[in-house]
Parts: sequence; C-alpha cells; structure tokens
Amino acid sequence: MHSDRFYTLSASCPDQVGIIARVSGFIAGHGGWILESSFHSDALTSRYFMRLEIKASSLPFLLAEFRELFRSEVAEPLSMTWQINDSAVKKRVVVLVSKQEHCLYDLLARWQAKELDIEIPCVISNHDTFRGFVEWHGIPFHHVPVNADNKKGAYAEMQRIFDDVRGDTMVLARYMQILSPDLCEALAGKIINIHHSFLPSFAGAKPYHQAYTRGVKLIGATCHYVTSELDAGPIIEQDVIRIDHSDSPEDMVRYGKDIEKTVLARGLRYHLEDRVLVHGNKTVVFR
Amino acid sequence: MHSDRFYTLSASCPDQVGIIARVSGFIAGHGGWILESSFHSDALTSRYFMRLEIKASSLPFLLAEFRELFRSEVAEPLSMTWQINDSAVKKRVVVLVSKQEHCLYDLLARWQAKELDIEIPCVISNHDTFRGFVEWHGIPFHHVPVNADNKKGAYAEMQRIFDDVRGDTMVLARYMQILSPDLCEALAGKIINIHHSFLPSFAGAKPYHQAYTRGVKLIGATCHYVTSELDAGPIIEQDVIRIDHSDSPEDMVRYGKDIEKTVLARGLRYHLEDRVLVHGNKTVVFR
Amino acid sequence: MHSDRFYTLSASCPDQVGIIARVSGFIAGHGGWILESSFHSDALTSRYFMRLEIKASSLPFLLAEFRELFRSEVAEPLSMTWQINDSAVKKRVVVLVSKQEHCLYDLLARWQAKELDIEIPCVISNHDTFRGFVEWHGIPFHHVPVNADNKKGAYAEMQRIFDDVRGDTMVLARYMQILSPDLCEALAGKIINIHHSFLPSFAGAKPYHQAYTRGVKLIGATCHYVTSELDAGPIIEQDVIRIDHSDSPEDMVRYGKDIEKTVLARGLRYHLEDRVLVHGNKTVVFR
Amino acid sequence: MHSDRFYTLSASCPDQVGIIARVSGFIAGHGGWILESSFHSDALTSRYFMRLEIKASSLPFLLAEFRELFRSEVAEPLSMTWQINDSAVKKRVVVLVSKQEHCLYDLLARWQAKELDIEIPCVISNHDTFRGFVEWHGIPFHHVPVNADNKKGAYAEMQRIFDDVRGDTMVLARYMQILSPDLCEALAGKIINIHHSFLPSFAGAKPYHQAYTRGVKLIGATCHYVTSELDAGPIIEQDVIRIDHSDSPEDMVRYGKDIEKTVLARGLRYHLEDRVLVHGNKTVVFR
Repeated sequence: MHSDRFYTLSASCPDQVGIIARVSGFIAGHGGWILESSFHSDALTSRYFMRLEIKASSLPFLLAEFRELFRSEVAEPLSMTWQINDSAVKKRVVVLVSKQEHCLYDLLARWQAKELDIEIPCVISNHDTFRGFVEWHGIPFHHVPVNADNKKGAYAEMQRIFDDVRGDTMVLARYMQILSPDLCEALAGKIINIHHSFLPSFAGAKPYHQAYTRGVKLIGATCHYVTSELDAGPIIEQDVIRIDHSDSPEDMVRYGKDIEKTVLARGLRYHLEDRVLVHGNKTVVFR
Repeated sequence: MHSDRFYTLSASCPDQVGIIARVSGFIAGHGGWILESSFHSDALTSRYFMRLEIKASSLPFLLAEFRELFRSEVAEPLSMTWQINDSAVKKRVVVLVSKQEHCLYDLLARWQAKELDIEIPCVISNHDTFRGFVEWHGIPFHHVPVNADNKKGAYAEMQRIFDDVRGDTMVLARYMQILSPDLCEALAGKIINIHHSFLPSFAGAKPYHQAYTRGVKLIGATCHYVTSELDAGPIIEQDVIRIDHSDSPEDMVRYGKDIEKTVLARGLRYHLEDRVLVHGNKTVVFR
Repeated sequence: MHSDRFYTLSASCPDQVGIIARVSGFIAGHGGWILESSFHSDALTSRYFMRLEIKASSLPFLLAEFRELFRSEVAEPLSMTWQINDSAVKKRVVVLVSKQEHCLYDLLARWQAKELDIEIPCVISNHDTFRGFVEWHGIPFHHVPVNADNKKGAYAEMQRIFDDVRGDTMVLARYMQILSPDLCEALAGKIINIHHSFLPSFAGAKPYHQAYTRGVKLIGATCHYVTSELDAGPIIEQDVIRIDHSDSPEDMVRYGKDIEKTVLARGLRYHLEDRVLVHGNKTVVFR
Repeated sequence: MHSDRFYTLSASCPDQVGIIARVSGFIAGHGGWILESSFHSDALTSRYFMRLEIKASSLPFLLAEFRELFRSEVAEPLSMTWQINDSAVKKRVVVLVSKQEHCLYDLLARWQAKELDIEIPCVISNHDTFRGFVEWHGIPFHHVPVNADNKKGAYAEMQRIFDDVRGDTMVLARYMQILSPDLCEALAGKIINIHHSFLPSFAGAKPYHQAYTRGVKLIGATCHYVTSELDAGPIIEQDVIRIDHSDSPEDMVRYGKDIEKTVLARGLRYHLEDRVLVHGNKTVVFR
C-alpha cells in the first residue's frame, strides 16, 4: 500500500518475446514511476500475466487518456485482456450475511480502521438479525428473505440493489443461501464466497461434520469466486488450522470461524487490489 | 465445551505416587462423571498439574460441599494449590482498549455469538473513541484518561471500577498504556495482555518497526499475563505470520492485527476455561 | 521420551463412571509411578481411550505379571481392548521403498541419531536402486520386483520376509505399488503409508497434478494406516505447505517431499510410541 | 526451475524512472526470452532490486559477451551491483558438519535426487564421525579438528580447502564451532548458517534450553549469512514449530531438527538460485 495515489494496471496476453519491454517502455516513455510490478509466465498455456502500480502524479495525463493510449499502443497490439484502476476511486463492496456474525464484524472492523479502504454501500441479508448493528455503522441494511417460493424474485431483488448502489464486488460473508445461476453469471468474477472447508474436500453442506466423520487432522477455509457450480469456482486463497480427536464438530465450527474470516479478508483484499487474475478455473494471485 | 453444566477442577501439587488415583478415586467415590481430564508432571521441578471437568449433575452435592470435601480429603493431604469453578457462573471480563478496533470488534463478535460465554460488565479506555460502539452493545463504557500527571489516580480508578463490577479478568485488548506496578500486583494472574511481537524478541515499543529493522521473515504476537516487568510475564499463547522484503512496517502492522486478535482470543479462552496453570514464569496450558 | 525404562499402557473401553479411578488405583496400589497420562472420552460413541506411561522400576513385578494382573483386575471387568508395551523392547520396522530417496534418507538419519529408537531388520524394494545405500548402513536389503504377472507371489514374499524378521510395523516410505488386499488384511493396523496429498482430496495417482489442475493454494501430505481401500484408511497425521500460481507440478513434487517426510516421521513416531488408538475409521492420537 | 538452460541476472541500483524499461528493453532488443522476473523497490532507501531468468538459447551471444554488453549498456549507466550466472554451471557447495546427522543426510538426499543441482566437492568436519557416510557417496571428506590451541591454523586450513576446490558457497550444516572473523570476512556473503532459534531470540549457545526457560510456545530456526558478529548476519529464511509445556529441552532439540533442515534447505536453495540480494543487514528474497 502506498500513500500516494497510483494506477493499478493488470493484464494478461499470449506470451511472446518483449512484453515487459513493451509495457515498461510505454510507461517509462511517459515518465511513469513504477511502484510495484509482478509478472508471471504460465508455461503450460503460454499465457502471460502482469500487474503494475504506477504513481499517478508521475504521468503527464489523466486516467482516461492513460487508458486510451495504453489501449492503442500496447494492449491491442499484444491482444491483452486488461484494466487500469485508480487508487483514488474506492471500490464499492456489497456484503451479504445470514445469522453468523464473525465475518461481518471482521469486515466492518477492517473498514472502520481503513485497513480495507472501500465503501460499503449496503449490507443484504436473508434475516433481519444484524440490522441494528449495520445501521449503527451508518450503512443501509436490506432484508431480502429467501425461501423455496420466492428465490427468483429474491435474487432479482438482490441484483437490482447491487446495480442501484453501483456495486463492484459482492461478498458472501457466510451467506447461507445458494445464489441462482442467473445471478452468478450476471456478476461473474465479481462475487466472492468463503467456504468453510479446504476445497476440493468437503464441498456442499456441513463441511465440518464431513471433516469430523473422515477424521482429518486439519480443517480449512477457501475463498473463491462464485460460479454456477457449487463451491467449484476459481480459488483465491486458502488456509488451515490444526484440530485433534478431542474436537467435536461444534469445536471445529468455532475454530473454523477464525480461518474463515482471515481467509475471506485476505482473498477480498487481493481481489480489491486487482491482485487476482482469473485464468480458466484457476487464479494468478500477485501478493 | 459441553452442553451440560460441569465443574472445572484445576490444581497443582508436589509430585508423588498415587495423585491421579487419589483425585479420581475421590470423584468416582461420589459417582462423579469425568468429562475431560489432563495431567502433566514437570520432571525438572517435580511438580504435578491437572485439570478435570466433572459433570455437575453426577455429583450428590452442591459446589460448596464439593469444595469442602475436596479440600479436606484431597487438596490438603496433597498440599495442593487448587480451584473448582462452575460452568454455570459466567466469568466477568473487563476489556481495556485505546484507539485500535481490531481486538475489540473481535472480542465483541465472539461474545455476541456466545463463543466466549462471558459477561463483559464494562469497557475501559483512555480515549472516548469507542463509546458509541460499546454502548450500542449494551455495555457500559468508562473513559479514564491517562497522562503523565494523573497516572496514579487513573490506575486507582481503573482498579476501583474492576472491583465494583466484580471483575474476574482484565484484558488489555491493545491498550497502549503501561499499567502501574501496584495494579499489576493487585490483580496478579488476572490481567492478560496481547503484545504485538513474538516475545522475547522485540519487547517494548514499536515491535513491528524493530522487526522491520532486523529483517525477520516472520512476525508474531504473544498473549501473556501482565507482571510489573514489561512484556516479561508468563506466556499463554503465541503465533506468527510470514512476511517478506516487500512488506513495510505499515504492512506488518496490518498483517499483525490478524494474529494479535486470534492469539488474544485463544489465550483468553484458555484462561477463562481454567486451562492455564502458572508455574513460575511459565504456563502449563491444557488445551 | 523418558530416559528410564517404562511400560506404555494403551486401552479403550465403553465409557462409564470410575474408569480413571480403577486404572490409576490399580497402578498406585502397586506403587506404580505414572510418568505421563492421557485420557479421552468420545461423547458420540461413548467410548473411552487412554494411554499411560509407568516407570518400570516402580512396579514390584515384571511385564508378564503386570499384564496378567491388569487383565484380570482391570481390563476384563471394563471390557477393554488393550496392550502394554515395554520401552526396553525396540519395535522392528520394515521399510518399503521404490525409487525416491527423501523418506528413506530421512528415516535412516532419525534411526542413526536414535531419534527413532527402533530396529530396522530390513528394507524391501521393488527396485534395486538403494541396495548400496541401505547395506552401507548394515541393514539387509531385499529386492522384490512387482509386475503385472507376479503380484500375488511378490506380496506373499514380502509378507514372508516381514514374518521372518518378526516385523512389528511396515512403513511404505513412498512405495509406489498398491499392496494386495490379502496383505492389507493380514497386517491390519501395522502398515503405515504416506500419501502425497491432503486427503480426502486427491486420492490415487498423481495428486500433485490433480492439485495443480484444481488450483489449490496449499498442498499436503497424509500419513495413514493402509486398508484394502486405496488411501481411505484411518488418518494419523497431516500437514500442508503453501504454493502459488508460479509453481508447476514439478515444483509441487519438490515442495511436497518436505512435508511427506516430516508427516511420515511424525505419524510413525506416534504409532511406535503407542500414541495412536484406532477408532472405527478414525484415530485418537495422544501426542 | 526450467528444463532449458538459462541465465540468471540479479542486480540492484539506485531507484529512478525507467529501470525495468532499460533492462527489459536491452534483453528484448537482443531477442531474449524472459522466463521469470521479479522486481522490488525499497521505498525507505530508494534502492531497486531485480532478478530475471533469460532463456540462454534465445540470445544471439554467449555468456561472456552478454555480460560485457550488459555492463556497458545497462549496468554502468544505472550504477548497478550485479551478476549474471549460467544454469549450466553447477555451483560448488562445501558442507561443514560436526556430529549431528540430520542436516547432512538431508542435504545429501537432495543432492542425490538432483533436487539441489549442485556439486559437493568435499565435506569438512571437526570430527571424523561421518567420514564413511560421506565417502560412500563418493565425496571427499576432510577432518579438520578445532580446539583452543589450533583455531587459527584450522580456519586457515578450511579456507585453503575451500579455495582449492573452488568453492562457491560454504554451508554450516549444524557445524558447532564459531568461525574466525578472518574467515567470515574472506568469504563474506558466501557462508550460510542454520541457527536453531527464531532469531533475534536466543542467539548463542543452547537456544532450545533458553526457549524452555522462557516458556515460549513456538520454537524456530533461522538460516542466515555468517558475519563476524555471532548469529547477527542477514536473515535469509526462518520458520517455527509449535511446542507445549510437556516438551522438555530434549524434545525441543528433536522437534527443532525438522525445521532446521527444512529452513536450511530452503535458504540454501534461494541463495544458490541467486534469489537472495543482500541489502545492508537484511535480504531481499525473490522466491
């Protein structure tokens, strides 16, 4: 994190000789100061990935012109998938919760401390449990109940809210409903979930009980992009914690919360800082 | 954690043949059902430590009589230091904070979720920052400013509040003042601090900056009992997190928060569940 | 680990009031000094597990009489499954390898340093690669080739060797053949394998390639008892190591070796010290 | 690790606009294919660090000419400290041991498996313990006793051997003597040690006993460059392992071995692959 305003360029393209030279030559040609840079060549697929932070004040133009010049001089010749973001523009993160507080408290503490330098335009929940807590923080709260009969309408309503508040990212902070395929596709690459197992083990319901039954010695949590296939999207971050034979499923639930919130916070940060580039069903994460 | 009410017996005594037999024989003799038991013999000092959870309803007497019988039949003959606590009596934890929110939010989330099954009779702070947040949770908030001129009075006031609310434990949740020796002694074994380094490295001020200067590859946090010697009391729990050359002291502060709150919560839980037995300047922790 | 000779009692039985009292009372009644003790009650199945180390010289009888008295006075009345072992009798561990050296070197280094206080009566391999290395250490080496045509004979030969050398435990130190169901059953609870994934993820062949394809952020290793179902036996120990997008399957193979040998060594030690009690398809591990 | 031959360029220089462009432009201008690249700007000292792997066959010249052109066109204009190494030239690593086998076995297993693609021209020891084991591997063994009277001669002899075999790196694989300041200076940046604590805690003798006395809950190991100040050189890699109250100093010694050998192997690999750039008393490690 830099105190100065900066632009973050993240991109991928087919690999070839001279990519770094072309990109860095373009930036240096305009006097741009590179604060941080990461490059990765995926040997098996011959695809090239990069992420650069460039000090905004070192460039002689504004963001729109930067994007336009980069497009014509670099991105199009190299057939890039790319984006340039401005650190001065806070990302807008819509948080979804159900009845468990650990991830919600954790995210709001990070937001309060400006550790996550985001805006939270609203919180959406299928229960009314946290209305008071969320509103106390000055954040609008939407109660959108979901049941067998109203799923379609509920998810349409959630998407409408997301669009209305111009959300950039939707975070499922232990939101205990499975989103509709429509919503997953409409917001592809923008929805982040925390699953309470070390995927691919124990996808689906009650993963701690599954872990208990199998007798594993570590339990985990996985932060991933949501796709229409349950718990199968590209993995952003994972971690584990040690348990033993004396731990009941309830103990695991308790221990698990500590890694769930940490893994979610790390994965979300990587995403918000444009450190995650999706590559098929996998991710490149430039930490 | 058991759903049934239980008594927790924790004790230490000089080692000799037959301690377990004597303790467990006493309990079994009264029909007591042992839910959990841990024993440790310290070979170097020949001292014996134990902790047992006994199902309350399996015993034919109430707590006072249990204590009295245990004292005369077991504890005194074995020269024990001991206590028996009742899971139905919630411990009363007074939380001290300054201006950083991560530990406070974390503790309140655990309290809300009953993961920490305690009472928080009040929060004390040398700043007024978190009054609203704390009071929203229905917890009284005391602003006790501390400065060079009023230290003696301030610490006396804090001890008075602690006594008034019948506190069992005082938690320094990133409280940024050094308590007076008087207070440390008056509440010996009852004050828990989280220090933001892997002690004994980097005691004192600005440990992350010290870590940055030394170029270590992991940073840590330490939960310990407070004694009058700064950051030198018995260690309850520690953990670390990996960093690298690209991390500034500010990055370390941010990463460090995640282990600070986790290590504090684990250490506090061990303490509240009578899992920690102090042994000189060390601890036996029956996890 | 104690320098004095000791007996290790490990047992399980249906849970009831007074088990610890009965066991420890029996030991104390004969003047037995308990060096270490662990107890566990499995609430869901109402089964009780224990492990005790008793100083040999504190008892007034030899091992055979100890066993006989324990059987009649404690084990049978409590319907125990139990064993008592003598620290002076070294366990005999037969090591199986193929062509990878990391686990073999690691085990022999621990054996040389007496960190693993065992006898290795022989090493068996389906390749002749390590004959010189093993024999240099004064350990007999048996080359038992395994191919599609001779599997039955090969596994019979391996079992014959194991019986001939009076093996207690068979360790698959990255042995790359699947043992026959007959052998698995004949030596049930005596064969320990190290699988190069964090089970239940990525059972079977080429787990690192499976991990690469799924894009996980940690890879692991699992030490487990071998049963006739591939990679599905009771888990003794597991651990993981962090990887990222820049790691190829070959990198993972290399990183993985470090946890494979460590996890195998830990699991083997627990087993040899009678710290592992099998419970259905799970384990109680008294570390 | 790449299967193709490559050159590794590692360099640092004062920070300024256009460094990456200049370096990558030079390489691309000669058709060079960059396999891997890492850059780091140290904000506090305004120094810039980089490491690149370039496919050898993509360049139209040999190593000597590459170095000459790079020097004149890039390194000198940018005031670089730099080196270019050839993956086809194996580094020559001289291993020093005393009487503990764990690091020696571990290094030789990695060397046998070509996981460490190095030459080991000889092993030097102050004891004759491992002569047979080392010579069985076809590696010359030098017994250079060190005692109070002959230190000066002994260290001169060790330096002479190192020079004779054209050593690149000297590894203290739990070598239990303190090298002379002369030797440390003569081979500055070339001697790697593994210290059995998480430095800066517990420098000097018997760190596990120091850890036991302080009652820490994790113990560690540190791989660092040797300087004339004991255990105070730039840290390359560190790791920790959890212990508890039941672990004696001897248990810690045993647990510690597992992290010592792993941390040493990681640190040595980073060094050999030119991933470590020393920066004052710290290191930049491009993993």
